[in-house]
Amino acid sequence: MNEVKIALLGFGTVGTGVYELLEKKSELIKERIGIKPIIKKILVKDLKKKRNIKIDQKCLTTNVEEILEDPDISIVCELMGGIEPAKSYVLKALQKGKEVVTANKAILAQYGNEIWKEATKRKRFLGFEASVGGGIPVIKTLKEALIGNNINSIIGIINGTTNYILTRMLENNLNFKDALKEAQAKGYAEADPTLDIKGVDSAHKISILASLAFGFYIPVSEVYTEGIEEIDLMDLKFAKDFGYIVKLLAFAQKRKNKIEIRVHPTLIPENHVLTSIRLNYNALYITGDFVGDILLYGLGAGKEPTASAVVSDIIDAIEYSYFRKKPFIKYPLTKNDKFLNIRPIEEVKFRYYFRFSAIDKPGVLSKISGILGKYNISIASVVQIGRQKKKGSVPVVMLTHETKEKNVIKALHEIDKLDVVTSSTKKLRILE
Amino acid sequence: MNEVKIALLGFGTVGTGVYELLEKKSELIKERIGIKPIIKKILVKDLKKKRNIKIDQKCLTTNVEEILEDPDISIVCELMGGIEPAKSYVLKALQKGKEVVTANKAILAQYGNEIWKEATKRKRFLGFEASVGGGIPVIKTLKEALIGNNINSIIGIINGTTNYILTRMLENNLNFKDALKEAQAKGYAEADPTLDIKGVDSAHKISILASLAFGFYIPVSEVYTEGIEEIDLMDLKFAKDFGYIVKLLAFAQKRKNKIEIRVHPTLIPENHVLTSIRLNYNALYITGDFVGDILLYGLGAGKEPTASAVVSDIIDAIEYSYFRKKPFIKYPLTKNDKFLNIRPIEEVKFRYYFRFSAIDKPGVLSKISGILGKYNISIASVVQIGRQKKKGSVPVVMLTHETKEKNVIKALHEIDKLDVVTSSTKKLRILE
Repeated sequence: MNEVKIALLGFGTVGTGVYELLEKKSELIKERIGIKPIIKKILVKDLKKKRNIKIDQKCLTTNVEEILEDPDISIVCELMGGIEPAKSYVLKALQKGKEVVTANKAILAQYGNEIWKEATKRKRFLGFEASVGGGIPVIKTLKEALIGNNINSIIGIINGTTNYILTRMLENNLNFKDALKEAQAKGYAEADPTLDIKGVDSAHKISILASLAFGFYIPVSEVYTEGIEEIDLMDLKFAKDFGYIVKLLAFAQKRKNKIEIRVHPTLIPENHVLTSIRLNYNALYITGDFVGDILLYGLGAGKEPTASAVVSDIIDAIEYSYFRKKPFIKYPLTKNDKFLNIRPIEEVKFRYYFRFSAIDKPGVLSKISGILGKYNISIASVVQIGRQKKKGSVPVVMLTHETKEKNVIKALHEIDKLDVVTSSTKKLRILE
Repeated sequence: MNEVKIALLGFGTVGTGVYELLEKKSELIKERIGIKPIIKKILVKDLKKKRNIKIDQKCLTTNVEEILEDPDISIVCELMGGIEPAKSYVLKALQKGKEVVTANKAILAQYGNEIWKEATKRKRFLGFEASVGGGIPVIKTLKEALIGNNINSIIGIINGTTNYILTRMLENNLNFKDALKEAQAKGYAEADPTLDIKGVDSAHKISILASLAFGFYIPVSEVYTEGIEEIDLMDLKFAKDFGYIVKLLAFAQKRKNKIEIRVHPTLIPENHVLTSIRLNYNALYITGDFVGDILLYGLGAGKEPTASAVVSDIIDAIEYSYFRKKPFIKYPLTKNDKFLNIRPIEEVKFRYYFRFSAIDKPGVLSKISGILGKYNISIASVVQIGRQKKKGSVPVVMLTHETKEKNVIKALHEIDKLDVVTSSTKKLRILE
């Protein structure tokens, strides 16, 4: 019988999802590809843990060597998360000649160089579709569907937690804290939401996508990263009045032979398709020189969507191990790994949204605009929000024409020291 | 040197695009996959035709046998369009042991059974990514990324011409004729736009997608098809007032063990992501049991996007012919080809938009609603548009609750015979 034996490392949410999918669909998959994938072993921490799933106890093991040393197992799926021991197990599995599938964005974004090199050296399949965008087939699209394209730009909403929070804030008049609480209650945010909210999760993912798009490894340390923790409901509303929706975007773009890679909240013009990505949905907006603009949209997390992506990789790994007469390494990302021509954020040009907090008296706007003028920052439109009834500060909101980030940094530094400015200026970048 | 030889059948817009892409990107592709694709022969109608492209005359031939009998050529790309001789050439190429790539939706939607059977029998790769959705990787997504899913539903905007026309009508207050003229001037509609406007092009494409999604061949003759030629600007505006955008949608859905497959203009609730697909863009909204909802969006036609899709298939064909030790036929669509359990449109339930043209006098609404009631069609909301200044008819617009199409057919037949009804009722279905 045509079977391929698989091992799972980790049996949490994603592992359980993969197990359930393969249990349920083994006949369907057999019909579709002629091969039945069989899960032979699952690495767990605790054999005695109570599980909400029927499983033969003999499948479970706490000893990874039982998997790595079993020549019968040709595919190893790392679904544990975290850096160690996940990273060591992935490397060992490749060294032992296994094809490897992983859902682990952190090890790829931080140690991708080592992992991709090992896979290339050992001529093994390395699948990581589930590491970005959950069930959205963005890795396959970049590696296969767009293989004839030079990728000019990837713009992604690749974190469901922050997208949920920003959507609920604007649409339901919630402040950041309440929206976060709601996201946690619904299971869209973790108890400690730091990695999501600070943009680190998005940075991990855009590092992986950029590496694929541009053909060499770009670690997460190269990604300029801002989160949404400073976003005020007021800013979402002012932006909307100007015709923009604020989302946390991840960018990987090639411009004039340099790469720009960053994560930050961004104003998106209302007629752009990315503004229709609401709640916990993710989307990738990719521009290639032949394909033009394409968008991929779907659930970026969750047991079932992630399992769908892992199984897609498993099937590709089966093709690779079972049908190949010789290895076929697509995208050897180890090629130019000493070349990292990344444009620093200071040198990137944007249009900006500024919200100044200023004392409500004559002459303030003139002081602010004087400093902006000094740094060649030209104002596109400005709204001074009504006079205060009580004493205190009023928001002055402004959109600028295009200017370099470094000018903005200098100007805001000076403006924030003005005695008429009561707290530090809120700055958001605008998507062209 | 690692090279694979390719032949193109046809050198029109798509053929030229593929040629240009491979010329421009052969080094990039070599870097990405280690193999260089080389176009050895191109079948043309006229060797002496003036072409806007530099090409070695020796590449061109008018004799298809030179390609089919050349053992050096392992991949044949059919880019001629039309039924014959395209269909015969595809079959012959498969019989001669070539891998085949085609952009031809018509031959697949009308003769897919024969073609898929031949490919399966000969164990050849048959690529058809470019047949649906231009550069959007929908075929790869269905065959590979979603391989672990049962597909419940595909809803597509898969014709750029009609989407362009409907977008321009609503957003720019154009009537159908003017919007069509504009689309023709911009190259988004052909001189004879019949196949697009009547929904036939969309029907071809949904037949292909449904075959893949459900695992057996569903010819275009099974697709219930309505076009947009009867759509009035007035209907787009009334729909908008009710909170809906009208688009030409193609559906392939599995419900209660039956397949529903159809093309018709449809009211989409304004907060649905499909309403953000404007102008000549296409989109596929796919629901799988594990992945949930995903959307793929991009340019559905044009030289470069289509070439991008063809080249993606060429690379897969190279993998197939060059690296396989044994054939790997995914999705043998010939399996259940005698089973066609399709629910007739009469048995499908919808909510409806009706626009009655009625004489503006008391009692009319009561007559109409009486007949609707007789057929168990329950009204959700109704708008009678202001009184006429001049004599004549007024539109009465109505949304219904869910009811079977056959009830609607009977009721409208009766209503349209009323002496107070001045012309036949406009009926549009609503997306849930």
